[in-house]
Amino acid sequence: MPQIRQNVATGEWVIIAPQRARRPGDFAAKKRASKKALPEHVANCPFCPGNESQTPPQVLQLPSSGPWQVRVVPNKFAAFQKKDPYERHFDGVYRALAGVGWHEVVIESRRHNAAPAFQTSQEIARILTAFQLRGIEMAQDPRVEQIVYLKNHGRGAGTSREHPHSQIIALPVVPPHDQRRVEAARRYFDETGECVFCQMWRAEGAGGERVVVENEHFVVFVPYAAFASFHTWIVPRRHRASFCGVEADELAALATLLRLVLRKIYVGLGDPAYNYLIHSAPLAASRSDYVHWYVAITPRPVPWGGFEMGSGMFVNATWPEEDARLLRATNV
Amino acid sequence: MPQIRQNVATGEWVIIAPQRARRPGDFAAKKRASKKALPEHVANCPFCPGNESQTPPQVLQLPSSGPWQVRVVPNKFAAFQKKDPYERHFDGVYRALAGVGWHEVVIESRRHNAAPAFQTSQEIARILTAFQLRGIEMAQDPRVEQIVYLKNHGRGAGTSREHPHSQIIALPVVPPHDQRRVEAARRYFDETGECVFCQMWRAEGAGGERVVVENEHFVVFVPYAAFASFHTWIVPRRHRASFCGVEADELAALATLLRLVLRKIYVGLGDPAYNYLIHSAPLAASRSDYVHWYVAITPRPVPWGGFEMGSGMFVNATWPEEDARLLRATNV
Repeated sequence: MPQIRQNVATGEWVIIAPQRARRPGDFAAKKRASKKALPEHVANCPFCPGNESQTPPQVLQLPSSGPWQVRVVPNKFAAFQKKDPYERHFDGVYRALAGVGWHEVVIESRRHNAAPAFQTSQEIARILTAFQLRGIEMAQDPRVEQIVYLKNHGRGAGTSREHPHSQIIALPVVPPHDQRRVEAARRYFDETGECVFCQMWRAEGAGGERVVVENEHFVVFVPYAAFASFHTWIVPRRHRASFCGVEADELAALATLLRLVLRKIYVGLGDPAYNYLIHSAPLAASRSDYVHWYVAITPRPVPWGGFEMGSGMFVNATWPEEDARLLRATNV
Repeated sequence: MPQIRQNVATGEWVIIAPQRARRPGDFAAKKRASKKALPEHVANCPFCPGNESQTPPQVLQLPSSGPWQVRVVPNKFAAFQKKDPYERHFDGVYRALAGVGWHEVVIESRRHNAAPAFQTSQEIARILTAFQLRGIEMAQDPRVEQIVYLKNHGRGAGTSREHPHSQIIALPVVPPHDQRRVEAARRYFDETGECVFCQMWRAEGAGGERVVVENEHFVVFVPYAAFASFHTWIVPRRHRASFCGVEADELAALATLLRLVLRKIYVGLGDPAYNYLIHSAPLAASRSDYVHWYVAITPRPVPWGGFEMGSGMFVNATWPEEDARLLRATNV
């Protein structure tokens, strides 16, 4: 029978209704048809080597000399502009702020077809390093309240470009979901004196039924109240609020695990579209004892409907325990 | 330059970043290719006449005698079950409720190809009447806290069936977005002594730049802080918290306007996928002075990305004022 579960770390309530998996056209029923293999280089792709002049000037390249392997450039279609003054207009029912902030694109590889499942751990570590270096610079901007690191893979996950890339967005406000997460974590801390994420990896880890994989630095699990099928969290054992402060050994361990999970999703689920986000504390809480950075991966096999968008409650058609079992059993 | 706007009625912050409309593959750039016309009857469609035995037994038909024009049946793939006892499990970081509630499907027409843009006002009024009759019954269930009425049109909006249908979901909890809306409305009422929706239709109406159409009963407009392109609200002038109490004259006027807007979206935007929801007060606030029922329509041309899903902030690539102008100018 369906259950309504709460994620105590985020405050989200989720409807787990596995019988919906029998819906026509739904997830586990089918794997995506094998797609045409992409070429390694596309002449008119602005992210491919040789076309560097088609992007705005780069703000970072790794390695810092020689041919780039990762490039970071301002987003040509930015949701934010960097140079505008900070303005407010509050007039009756109309309230607006100037859209100031940073919006950058991380070009993850020279190869057009280097989807994350085909990248090495070293390549993924370099992408994470680029995230961190840019995040540290953006955090110096006094207008910035929150920084979001994310990847959209596949059209169903909201991307319009094939060439592997991710985004870094620095916002002048704390977005609603981050506000909710901070409030839920603070409430838990006030009640128990513990960080809810630290409690959670301890409860889930050490071979629990929702664990996908774990190592010295991280526990990877499908949350008890996963809001979507195969939604997976990578939670660091070391308490830290902000991704900006993560140390080299953890970053390397994260790259290895992120690659492993993305490969399991690729093989086990037939290369679905997905998003991943690095959730880091809002800057005002970047040293707090109760907010804890983590990575969340969400496959996007089908579009969400009006219920989810309108109510903010999600229906998950699979048991998190079974999703974890499938991912554990998927060899890559 | 981009703006961050707040919808004071819902508490949502939205990034309006029109230069993003130039993104490859984005909305206004293309209309959908004309699709294969659907047949009026499909032999193996469980919602087509003659296949009534393939659905669970109906709970309502309209008209009540003679051939049905609208049927309501329990959802075969329900997110909720009606008969379970109400149970809670709270254990450390794990919190769950039994998934009790109602989940019904409204089969909107005998005709497989009767998408709303091709229905008459009388047909749409009959669907709205079915919503209301079922909502009134569900509201009698003491476990129900909120009722959501919604339609998903097209695969991109989360539906897997062609035959025109909509859904009614009665929940044992108040979903997060409804909680936020109620809190925003209550705060506005506490500060001003006015219903924020009443203030909003007065500010937007009478020929304002975001108005699409208005009549004696409703103002239809693209909200100042629309979270998506062509997101459109139908707000009743008469203050009322709950859709269950809406009177016959308003229901008829709503049917006329809903049909008009859906036809404008069909013609003006090339039949995009869309959702519409009837937002009604949580049952505990069903007679309140500060919550106000309304209808929200959201075209879904492209999937939302990880930023929107993870942060809860949306990027709208068009100015609401320009969207309203385009919809006003679209003749149907």
